[in-house]
Amino acid sequence: MIFPNVPQVKYEGPESRNPFAFKFYDPDKVISGKTMRAHLKFAMAWWHNLTAGGTDMFGRATIDKSFGGTTPMEIAKARADAGFEFMRKLGIDYFCFHDLDLIAEADTLEAQNRQLDEIAAYIKGKMDATGIKCLWGTTNLTNNPRFMNGAGSSNSADVFARAAANVKKTLDIMYLFTQGGENSYTGGFVFWGGREGYETLWNTDMALERDNVARLMHLAVDYARKIGFNGQFYIEPKPKEPMKHQYDYDAETAIGFLRKYGLDGDFKLNIEANHATLAGHTFRHELRVAADNNMLGSIDANTGDPHLGWDTDEFAYNVYDTTECMYEVLRAGGFGWGGLNFDAKNRRPSNTYEDMFHGFILSMDAFALGLINAVKIWDDGRVGVLSPEGHAERYGSWNSGIGLAIRSGKATLESLSDYALKQGEPQLPGSGRQEYIQNVINQVTFG
Amino acid sequence: MIFPNVPQVKYEGPESRNPFAFKFYDPDKVISGKTMRAHLKFAMAWWHNLTAGGTDMFGRATIDKSFGGTTPMEIAKARADAGFEFMRKLGIDYFCFHDLDLIAEADTLEAQNRQLDEIAAYIKGKMDATGIKCLWGTTNLTNNPRFMNGAGSSNSADVFARAAANVKKTLDIMYLFTQGGENSYTGGFVFWGGREGYETLWNTDMALERDNVARLMHLAVDYARKIGFNGQFYIEPKPKEPMKHQYDYDAETAIGFLRKYGLDGDFKLNIEANHATLAGHTFRHELRVAADNNMLGSIDANTGDPHLGWDTDEFAYNVYDTTECMYEVLRAGGFGWGGLNFDAKNRRPSNTYEDMFHGFILSMDAFALGLINAVKIWDDGRVGVLSPEGHAERYGSWNSGIGLAIRSGKATLESLSDYALKQGEPQLPGSGRQEYIQNVINQVTFG
Amino acid sequence: MIFPNVPQVKYEGPESRNPFAFKFYDPDKVISGKTMRAHLKFAMAWWHNLTAGGTDMFGRATIDKSFGGTTPMEIAKARADAGFEFMRKLGIDYFCFHDLDLIAEADTLEAQNRQLDEIAAYIKGKMDATGIKCLWGTTNLTNNPRFMNGAGSSNSADVFARAAANVKKTLDIMYLFTQGGENSYTGGFVFWGGREGYETLWNTDMALERDNVARLMHLAVDYARKIGFNGQFYIEPKPKEPMKHQYDYDAETAIGFLRKYGLDGDFKLNIEANHATLAGHTFRHELRVAADNNMLGSIDANTGDPHLGWDTDEFAYNVYDTTECMYEVLRAGGFGWGGLNFDAKNRRPSNTYEDMFHGFILSMDAFALGLINAVKIWDDGRVGVLSPEGHAERYGSWNSGIGLAIRSGKATLESLSDYALKQGEPQLPGSGRQEYIQNVINQVTFG
Amino acid sequence: MIFPNVPQVKYEGPESRNPFAFKFYDPDKVISGKTMRAHLKFAMAWWHNLTAGGTDMFGRATIDKSFGGTTPMEIAKARADAGFEFMRKLGIDYFCFHDLDLIAEADTLEAQNRQLDEIAAYIKGKMDATGIKCLWGTTNLTNNPRFMNGAGSSNSADVFARAAANVKKTLDIMYLFTQGGENSYTGGFVFWGGREGYETLWNTDMALERDNVARLMHLAVDYARKIGFNGQFYIEPKPKEPMKHQYDYDAETAIGFLRKYGLDGDFKLNIEANHATLAGHTFRHELRVAADNNMLGSIDANTGDPHLGWDTDEFAYNVYDTTECMYEVLRAGGFGWGGLNFDAKNRRPSNTYEDMFHGFILSMDAFALGLINAVKIWDDGRVGVLSPEGHAERYGSWNSGIGLAIRSGKATLESLSDYALKQGEPQLPGSGRQEYIQNVINQVTFG
Repeated sequence: MIFPNVPQVKYEGPESRNPFAFKFYDPDKVISGKTMRAHLKFAMAWWHNLTAGGTDMFGRATIDKSFGGTTPMEIAKARADAGFEFMRKLGIDYFCFHDLDLIAEADTLEAQNRQLDEIAAYIKGKMDATGIKCLWGTTNLTNNPRFMNGAGSSNSADVFARAAANVKKTLDIMYLFTQGGENSYTGGFVFWGGREGYETLWNTDMALERDNVARLMHLAVDYARKIGFNGQFYIEPKPKEPMKHQYDYDAETAIGFLRKYGLDGDFKLNIEANHATLAGHTFRHELRVAADNNMLGSIDANTGDPHLGWDTDEFAYNVYDTTECMYEVLRAGGFGWGGLNFDAKNRRPSNTYEDMFHGFILSMDAFALGLINAVKIWDDGRVGVLSPEGHAERYGSWNSGIGLAIRSGKATLESLSDYALKQGEPQLPGSGRQEYIQNVINQVTFG
Repeated sequence: MIFPNVPQVKYEGPESRNPFAFKFYDPDKVISGKTMRAHLKFAMAWWHNLTAGGTDMFGRATIDKSFGGTTPMEIAKARADAGFEFMRKLGIDYFCFHDLDLIAEADTLEAQNRQLDEIAAYIKGKMDATGIKCLWGTTNLTNNPRFMNGAGSSNSADVFARAAANVKKTLDIMYLFTQGGENSYTGGFVFWGGREGYETLWNTDMALERDNVARLMHLAVDYARKIGFNGQFYIEPKPKEPMKHQYDYDAETAIGFLRKYGLDGDFKLNIEANHATLAGHTFRHELRVAADNNMLGSIDANTGDPHLGWDTDEFAYNVYDTTECMYEVLRAGGFGWGGLNFDAKNRRPSNTYEDMFHGFILSMDAFALGLINAVKIWDDGRVGVLSPEGHAERYGSWNSGIGLAIRSGKATLESLSDYALKQGEPQLPGSGRQEYIQNVINQVTFG
Repeated sequence: MIFPNVPQVKYEGPESRNPFAFKFYDPDKVISGKTMRAHLKFAMAWWHNLTAGGTDMFGRATIDKSFGGTTPMEIAKARADAGFEFMRKLGIDYFCFHDLDLIAEADTLEAQNRQLDEIAAYIKGKMDATGIKCLWGTTNLTNNPRFMNGAGSSNSADVFARAAANVKKTLDIMYLFTQGGENSYTGGFVFWGGREGYETLWNTDMALERDNVARLMHLAVDYARKIGFNGQFYIEPKPKEPMKHQYDYDAETAIGFLRKYGLDGDFKLNIEANHATLAGHTFRHELRVAADNNMLGSIDANTGDPHLGWDTDEFAYNVYDTTECMYEVLRAGGFGWGGLNFDAKNRRPSNTYEDMFHGFILSMDAFALGLINAVKIWDDGRVGVLSPEGHAERYGSWNSGIGLAIRSGKATLESLSDYALKQGEPQLPGSGRQEYIQNVINQVTFG
Repeated sequence: MIFPNVPQVKYEGPESRNPFAFKFYDPDKVISGKTMRAHLKFAMAWWHNLTAGGTDMFGRATIDKSFGGTTPMEIAKARADAGFEFMRKLGIDYFCFHDLDLIAEADTLEAQNRQLDEIAAYIKGKMDATGIKCLWGTTNLTNNPRFMNGAGSSNSADVFARAAANVKKTLDIMYLFTQGGENSYTGGFVFWGGREGYETLWNTDMALERDNVARLMHLAVDYARKIGFNGQFYIEPKPKEPMKHQYDYDAETAIGFLRKYGLDGDFKLNIEANHATLAGHTFRHELRVAADNNMLGSIDANTGDPHLGWDTDEFAYNVYDTTECMYEVLRAGGFGWGGLNFDAKNRRPSNTYEDMFHGFILSMDAFALGLINAVKIWDDGRVGVLSPEGHAERYGSWNSGIGLAIRSGKATLESLSDYALKQGEPQLPGSGRQEYIQNVINQVTFG
């Protein structure tokens, strides 16, 4: 046992002073027709939780994540052991990974593929034993110097080929992870575009690079379908860091890219909260854009620090944000094949095993509150233009008369001009009532 | 009656669906030794609530705030009538004003001073009748073209003289407002530096301009003390808009300025939430800086939009923010002569009289929740390094041994080097536990 | 004569100390096969130059722009007189306008249309007399309270109808302006989406609103083609101010929108520099995105202040920016039907007629320098991956071997994996040389 | 020889196409009474140039900086060899260092001090042989996990003691470096506060932490003076990264801190360009603030990317910025004991030895241009309110009459009110002429 000081984490309700208990997340409680567990589909990110030790640009690790292993493969397996103990203690049903989270990078592609096969089999054994699933995998196309100018967008075709080989291997693993006879399920694969950006446009042919990124994605889809992996592909929009991003700046940009290249049938978006805010949007804005385009696939749940200008990947705690998130997810009909992956890491000085659990408990409770509040707001009926009554009140003029004429294509600029001349000054369109709405949100949330 | 559709607003508790009731603010409820009313000291800002009609850079007013008046003086008096009805209906005990909120700007200084005398007497009558007080006044040194290069910082000494005259008149009014025999009280005067910034340093002697701003403040203090106005002076830090600010960018800058010019005995800070965030800080950071320097005077309560880059002056609604705010205020011992002024305006499409009330109810409830939560967090004992136990746990090493030696001036670099050589690698300083802390905050807040 | 103190502004070269002379812009000088005048196609924005007087959110106008007129129509005509004198003195060949720049808003639509007819005829007379053309027109759908919730995106269909009527009238004027028998030319029409955004998603059906905006654009195109106006339509991306924008956040967003709604055949983009930076991009990034998609239509030339968070609309002066801009324009093959419109206003304290000319001379010289430098950089040959040699050096691997196989669709993930296994570690892709590139840019620019 | 492909870099003028030549920096050319070399006082930062290999949060080094060494001490000496060859080839007279740039961190303090002694002696030998000096040293109080909660601001007194020991050792080295009998000179020591910030105020006693930081600074000054090191101490303001900073957010904050704690006699500021922009200021603003307070000590010359939110430490290239910088430096009377330290690193894909030289040549030429332009602007006489004539024109009203009365303390609010009543409406204060000023700057710079 790697975390002997941490017991099984259970729901104990809002009065409990047990630090290793949920106060709000009650996994099997049914709310709005499904258990909280089924609504929320929490996933653990292998990289932050099992690999990263608190390194930042100004200092090295503050916590040792070898979990007792000494050789690279021992460490890799110890991390898997730790991860499954961690997930079981928290009741988390999914994980996400990069190929190079699972093992240390090897000297040759052959060796790396061999080691990946070994660790994948080891992990698959644990998956079969526990029922824990893999939500999605991705390929680390960022860390090695060969990718310094990008992977799919590299100026070097040889580097692109190497990236393709690594993507292929990750897809093989992902396929393995999803197979189980009757228990097979649909996983996913994420492109998050780590280095697919530029430093200066003076040395960048953005059009060619984007074409090539699209090519890599098409190749991946083709291969996946060929081997029988029918999972969901995702783009994870990100505006910057380490470079200024291109095809994936935000949800709108990514959707436009997918449509232009005919990838929108196989891809959806994996929306990350901190990427949204770095792009100058709210988390909710990105979720809404994705949902309105039927592109809301999965979520990387974290939060940034509004006064730090990079991707701090903090554990989400703000219940306003989780409420808005779950409201959008509910409205979109739930997650489908995606889920809520905690792409979050402990603060560097939170350097104990216990802190690892505190981070997850924090965010699991915060999203549970978000779910509860979202349902309450929906049921309350006083706000939410997206509910049928609210919509009719605000947008009712579009359902008949001139509004319907416009929507049904019967109006012209001339007919509308005539209408406007006849109607005289139109009535003001009615108060937006933002302050009242916020009143109700606070009442429902804190009442 | 100007707001016949709005009844007296009372506390009805979290279950009420009456939009014109408080759900959380229970004015006479005692909490931590004082009534909520006494803790929170809400004030109405004359400008946003009684004068502004929703104008922005792209459009004109959406609501008429003449309240039935037609001539300028009628309008001025109608606004006072509206304001006192508004405050009484909400149970607000204070207001704040600029000289030119009270009347329309006149063609000459004489005329303006005469009209100010007339309206001040009118308002004073209402104050005496209701017991409502003036928290602070300020002078509009921004709107008139003569102040286009600043007031105290203008390159023109004649403009400075005119600014001085206007400040004098506002001080006269403020003095009048605070007089009441036995019922006299201590009000305040704010410098918020509207145009005391620069557009380009190529045409700006910042050193001279800052000297002059300090001169204007000294003149104001001297005059106030001479006429017997013993109120509190405030600087309201602001980083920008419409210009790039100088002496008052943020709390640190303002405090440094006050100390340099020997003004720190007469001045404290009036911290505005949206100014804090525009300066790249949290609201709480600014409050803490002020409090740590014994400079926390008063608060302009509002909020900005993190994705809009200017001072949106929205009604505060985020209970995390109000909780942190009230925690800092409680820790600092409460407001003293200051209070919570709602420097906030309805969104432009919230263009009804009812929306005016919704905005205030929203923020009054949000700050009430903040107060309740702050007390709960304090009492809970699990977080808050500022409580005695929390402090000892985190900073205990400073109370004895080498820590005490350092603090008491007995250590030197050499003695500390010797100590370090002897001690070997020091113990890691202990987890910061941010995630656990946020857990507890959410539990206390939502539990 | 309205500007008697300002003479005809001519090119006098870099040594001239005449403030009313061009130092770099030599209109008839041929560079890279065209006159500078033909390359740059400068346009005057009616609103900033002839209407706006320095008003900001904190103060009223500092300069009177009635130019001697007293009644509204006299003022409107005096502004036209001033504008044509101004353009002639600077040698500017184009102007841009909103309907409500030309006249004061009228009480009724009929009256407004009548007054617009009168002023349009007056201006057309001046156009015919001088040869000055209209680059594009647009409709003010922002200022009137009826548009407080948007125009095309309003929740009120009646308001949409009114917006449609106003667009129709502007198209009529634009059509008039472009007619001249043999001298007819192709103008444009801009949608810049002033209020087509949201304040809170709680009260916004973004999907419906976007559908409706697209409907308004289709209606406008249909009407234009019907009356014989074959001009270019433009979207002008803008991320915020006064609201958070939706369909037009940046170039990528706008292009995705146009494609989704089948509007990309009739529309291109009008890229504004300050909007680019508010969206978190460089001006050049937006130009490149537009050009790579064959969507670079026209430019609103101005600049922001990086330390102020709103659209300051300053006169462009930074020659790095103008160089990058003109490099992208040249690479895209020049402006086509668009041009360089100075969507810029004098700083509020620059309140003289002379300052109006200084602003234009500043930006005209800055873009002339940008053009000269862009051509020099192109000819220099040492930088610019977009030139044939530079491209081959950096991206050569894509023109043969495995690169060509990928581009021609002959590779699969499996074949690339085999290739990668065979090739072993690929060569690093070669230095990006950013510092060397910047060396050369500075040498060419300042040498 | 470590850089055999790079020759001695000489001035060859703006026409040279030799990449290893200066186009603008002519070290011995006299301008405004001093050689360019003496004006600019360039320094090499040991860390970025000799140690860092392109690592970022998403990837490991792209260039090997062991320069042929294999053991840690061999590498340390090879780096010194490389550094001195590098400086001599570029004609750079100064360097700056952290203690842990010079050697790899050792397991114990004793071992570390021993190794520092060895490398310091080695470097001192090279200094004596070449005449190259050390501009300033600093202590790495960031990288080791022990400093995870800060050094001077740590909650652990033992960690503070260890920090003190490390500072002592760096001061010993700095003292050694400045000794040379008749050739002794005055070096400096920088506190740049790497981790002296906070993550959340919930766990931070900012007042205590700031007191302690001041204590560490006092201890350092006391020790320095005791051993005979009379050098200049500096604070380097920084607003964030990795934490949210406290006492050193920007120049104003740092100056206020130094004054409060009585450190302003021994300290000045080391202003870093990219820190200025991260704090929401221009580089020039920070320089002006420092200079106006007689606190402009030294400069960390680099630049950020306005669209990336962290400290990118790029080589300065923007001649507008270098011109404003050198204008402020000249106005302040030059550098005194400070200089221009290139706290800049090559972009990660600029991974060759040649790129190291390109970076320095880029910035040395850019600052040379800045110096040349600053002198030209000063001599030109048309702009610059800081010149005597410009000042009189803009601020003349402060030299006589009412302005002088105010400045000499003879005015009161009453006398100024009387004056204002008598004068009537004051004259508008005169155009700010920003556009004209920018015209002249561009003319002088590009003419």
